[in-house]
Amino acid sequence: MTGTLTIAGLGPGDDAMVTPEVTAALAVATDIVGYGPYVARVQLRDGLTLHPSDNRVELQRASEALRLASEGRHVVVVSSGDPGVFAMASAVFEALEHKPQWQALTIRVLPGVTAMLAAAARAGAPLGHDFCAINLSDNLKPWAVIERRLRLAAEADFAIALYNPRSASRPEGFGRALEILNDAGCGERIAIFARAVSTPDERIETVALRDARPEMADMRTLVIVGNSSTRRVGRFVYAPRQAR
Amino acid sequence: MTGTLTIAGLGPGDDAMVTPEVTAALAVATDIVGYGPYVARVQLRDGLTLHPSDNRVELQRASEALRLASEGRHVVVVSSGDPGVFAMASAVFEALEHKPQWQALTIRVLPGVTAMLAAAARAGAPLGHDFCAINLSDNLKPWAVIERRLRLAAEADFAIALYNPRSASRPEGFGRALEILNDAGCGERIAIFARAVSTPDERIETVALRDARPEMADMRTLVIVGNSSTRRVGRFVYAPRQAR
Repeated sequence: MTGTLTIAGLGPGDDAMVTPEVTAALAVATDIVGYGPYVARVQLRDGLTLHPSDNRVELQRASEALRLASEGRHVVVVSSGDPGVFAMASAVFEALEHKPQWQALTIRVLPGVTAMLAAAARAGAPLGHDFCAINLSDNLKPWAVIERRLRLAAEADFAIALYNPRSASRPEGFGRALEILNDAGCGERIAIFARAVSTPDERIETVALRDARPEMADMRTLVIVGNSSTRRVGRFVYAPRQAR
Repeated sequence: MTGTLTIAGLGPGDDAMVTPEVTAALAVATDIVGYGPYVARVQLRDGLTLHPSDNRVELQRASEALRLASEGRHVVVVSSGDPGVFAMASAVFEALEHKPQWQALTIRVLPGVTAMLAAAARAGAPLGHDFCAINLSDNLKPWAVIERRLRLAAEADFAIALYNPRSASRPEGFGRALEILNDAGCGERIAIFARAVSTPDERIETVALRDARPEMADMRTLVIVGNSSTRRVGRFVYAPRQAR
């Protein structure tokens, strides 16, 4: 099998945040596989086939990418941000488990700037001390697991990055997450709502968690809740290096 | 004040992981400030002054960078990885708090590929489900805080990225961290030791946590402890998207 499969992160949106190794992989690809809006970020050229697909078909998309590679194609699976953080890399390895004959393929993961790093950079340095990342989508895990992790994260005094806070199909989860964090004593903490960072639609808002409303987030928003020491300096928000 | 201060992440080591916006910032800088080995990654040219400094002088280094910018220089503070994750961005904002007159400066943070993302990509996708990042250095926080966070992270069933696991000045901490995680029932979990990722010295080892030894980590190692579902497929390690 001479095909290759590369799982690449396109960063948060701006091409200025795409790493040169990802750009190089895209330049020699024969096939680009991914969620439609991410595939649309890749320039079409002779010899390149685009395979855009819908949201929520990660496993089929991963199998299709492996199949193309097994036929000798040079396939790049694209994710926004980093492919290993709530994105396509896990789905590809899951598909690989179902088809051991594909394990001989050359497979590489190329990291990217994940949403929380881009959001943190715009806001200041809210992830400068210990932190966690929780995906609020309950497509693939029970809501009870999410609740438990939110409570423990608050107790550990981690800064908390919330991925996929809100979607049309589950509008109520994020409101419950805010309630849980408020009940856990995080009302005074600073919450950052970072929408579409590095795109023309970018918007950054910071509020005390107790004043945060579910409507402040949508599918393109990444939320960071600071730890108990996180504070403002000028227009920035940062986590001091010293724990209290 | 017409000077500028840019806090930029150089990624884990390979120039192929430096984002174009960071490369562009370095190209127009008049001064590069940072820890010696990171400053050494920037090519010297006419009109550029390098200001390398020792480890553990973050706050002085940050003040010096702000002072240079206040004199009209175009300063880039460099960190490896991402500047907002256990790196220079928090120190700069801390310094800024001490000197409000510098808050009028143009300050930008440019994100980068932080060590855990590069390590995860090499290993497969161990951060594909909820995770946390804990700095094991106790220079700036009491060891008791670290212990508590490790216990809560294990209880939450996060994958756990351990930054700065071990240094010459505190050789015993990492061994204690391994003990705590073993005591918390994580012995069966897969631990990834990723050293100097993307450099000629790169080495990736994976073992069951119970077989991990403190000597397997040094100052250039990033450790990722999988969650309870993390498993192997071929030569890769990944966290399934589904929680159990």
